[in-house]
Amino acid sequence: MIYLDSNATTRIDPEVVDAMLPFLTEHYANPSSGYKAGRLVKRAVTGARQQVANLLNAEPDEIIFTGCGTESNNAVIQSLWHTPPAGRQVISARSEHSAVIEPLKPWQQDGGRVTWLDVDRHGRIDLAQLESALDDGPTALVTLMWANNETGVLQSIPDIVRLAHDRGVPVHTDAVQACGKLPIDVRQCPVDYLSLSGHKFHAPKGVGALFASRRARLRPWLLGGGQEGGHRSGTENVAGVVALGRAAELMASHLRQGDMARIEALRDRFETGLTRTFPNAEIHAAGAPRLPTTCSVQLPGLDAAGLLILLDQRGVCASAGSACHSAAVHPSHVLEAMGYDAEHAARTLRFSFSRFNTAPEIDQALDHLAAAATIMRREQSRLTS
Amino acid sequence: MIYLDSNATTRIDPEVVDAMLPFLTEHYANPSSGYKAGRLVKRAVTGARQQVANLLNAEPDEIIFTGCGTESNNAVIQSLWHTPPAGRQVISARSEHSAVIEPLKPWQQDGGRVTWLDVDRHGRIDLAQLESALDDGPTALVTLMWANNETGVLQSIPDIVRLAHDRGVPVHTDAVQACGKLPIDVRQCPVDYLSLSGHKFHAPKGVGALFASRRARLRPWLLGGGQEGGHRSGTENVAGVVALGRAAELMASHLRQGDMARIEALRDRFETGLTRTFPNAEIHAAGAPRLPTTCSVQLPGLDAAGLLILLDQRGVCASAGSACHSAAVHPSHVLEAMGYDAEHAARTLRFSFSRFNTAPEIDQALDHLAAAATIMRREQSRLTS
Repeated sequence: MIYLDSNATTRIDPEVVDAMLPFLTEHYANPSSGYKAGRLVKRAVTGARQQVANLLNAEPDEIIFTGCGTESNNAVIQSLWHTPPAGRQVISARSEHSAVIEPLKPWQQDGGRVTWLDVDRHGRIDLAQLESALDDGPTALVTLMWANNETGVLQSIPDIVRLAHDRGVPVHTDAVQACGKLPIDVRQCPVDYLSLSGHKFHAPKGVGALFASRRARLRPWLLGGGQEGGHRSGTENVAGVVALGRAAELMASHLRQGDMARIEALRDRFETGLTRTFPNAEIHAAGAPRLPTTCSVQLPGLDAAGLLILLDQRGVCASAGSACHSAAVHPSHVLEAMGYDAEHAARTLRFSFSRFNTAPEIDQALDHLAAAATIMRREQSRLTS
Repeated sequence: MIYLDSNATTRIDPEVVDAMLPFLTEHYANPSSGYKAGRLVKRAVTGARQQVANLLNAEPDEIIFTGCGTESNNAVIQSLWHTPPAGRQVISARSEHSAVIEPLKPWQQDGGRVTWLDVDRHGRIDLAQLESALDDGPTALVTLMWANNETGVLQSIPDIVRLAHDRGVPVHTDAVQACGKLPIDVRQCPVDYLSLSGHKFHAPKGVGALFASRRARLRPWLLGGGQEGGHRSGTENVAGVVALGRAAELMASHLRQGDMARIEALRDRFETGLTRTFPNAEIHAAGAPRLPTTCSVQLPGLDAAGLLILLDQRGVCASAGSACHSAAVHPSHVLEAMGYDAEHAARTLRFSFSRFNTAPEIDQALDHLAAAATIMRREQSRLTS
């Protein structure tokens, strides 16, 4: 299998599995238990919180473990809803993940206002439009993603924070795709809230975190035994949390060692090969800052769904956009926001890379893609002849 | 280590770890991905949903995977809050878990009414009191736990369902402690909502489920990609869910094989030994139906906190009540609801058992407890002389 879908989810790092296994076997005590076995588990949770904090240059008490990035996003939006005065605006963008767009719908239905910023052909917002939206009425929150899951395009979060904070407006960023792939320092770029998800950086599914700055308002969303500083009650997902901590530590270490340059070189190798085989290929957001791990490409005249089936038969995993949606096939709202039509979206493939990919895999994937395209063209011409 | 704290959390069954491991290693794809690797993972999630449904005699589409029992409880209560007419009453009891009591506080603060039923000396509610509460005004929900976490006492959920349904009122039960330990059949005992938590029956921490009957109203609480039938978006905790399914299957199988009788015999062996060593020991809820796994006992003249330290030194894990609370030491609200005072609670220990306990462990634990009590009495008489 050649796995080129790391924006959907990543292979779990064997070192992460090694770190969590003891907490699935001998260290099974409840971290709230007072005896030695419980205290050992509690220390592991504390250590993991420090590791995640380190990745962001945050303080441990600013990290709240959650079940996923979606929960982190929902928690911020629902929390701000309860911050008076009611009915204020939230500023977001049309290209956000559904885990931000969907929880903003009740905000609108319940009488709040959501201003959806446009994005340009690269998927970037216009800072001037953000500024005028901020000046257009009291604003509860700006929520804009750090890196887009479909194209990898980056928003300029430091500029966004500056503009919002100049007006006293807090900023949330969905950094699920960015975290561990770009240096993020919440002191240098003082976002108020930041969502991350373990399974996007080689931890298992089912664990995420919310960074909430000490100055940020946050309303508890799961009430009970008072875990996670009272914000998110419920017995901790100990093995998951330990995995998230170890994965954060490994990502930080790999970042320092320049791993992203190696992944970017793989991505560039892929894109060079791609444009050689498909001279009319259009790589999205290629002219803008984007994640080194992501290639979103439109292949003219080739149906993406068909190509993906042929690639799957050859053991190549890629996607037609976001995999974060259950089942439903629908045109990408991200590409639509960038000004592309449904036909364009239907010809778009996403390849996304991680440190587990190798150059030979890239070359094989390109061969498979070329072979799949040949079959597709033959089939299509047979159908039209 | 002699682990007698299975109501706090359980040892993860090695067979459960075996079932989940492939999903932490080779099968890491996103279940929403369309290629073979993703479909394999989706099938595993589907299979786990069926396994959990089987444990309850429910349908798979009535099972929603959550992060913990607390999330399941919160989801039901918050969901009902949004069901008009607003301001209706919820009926619950003073001995409920904090994961029910705490989310009911905002219900009260936001203008709703909560009727807290009393419990008797055994911790059981009075069905006549429930009936008059039901007749005292429009009721949105009855929420009563199946088995109490501290004492193991059971509420008569079938009677509660009958009384509530006679008046068209839905019933939620926090079955976190009961699930897998008692036969639960949601067709025979048609509760509308039921919460369960994996780590209470030999699955890992960080995964739970909510049963919501097809006729039950349920408002989505995590919005995004539409997973879990749209109720709880977010990429699935695949390994956790697979573990939960396997643990449910194993519990069902052990239940059928009469495992609970074996555990009850261990618990009775423990209690017989206990009353031999401590003739004045008072076993809570001994005169009522209770879980076969739980022994809550007051040892007159002996401080529980001190005993627990001495037991811990000898490798015996037990607790002074609920371990579901982070850190804070406070008198048990459960014992208080049963009419006991703070001094009584401070002399109360909870021992809870699972299929991993053995008769020799029970006997050793009794020896350690006797030795600890001797030391405590010596220390206490030294302090008072």
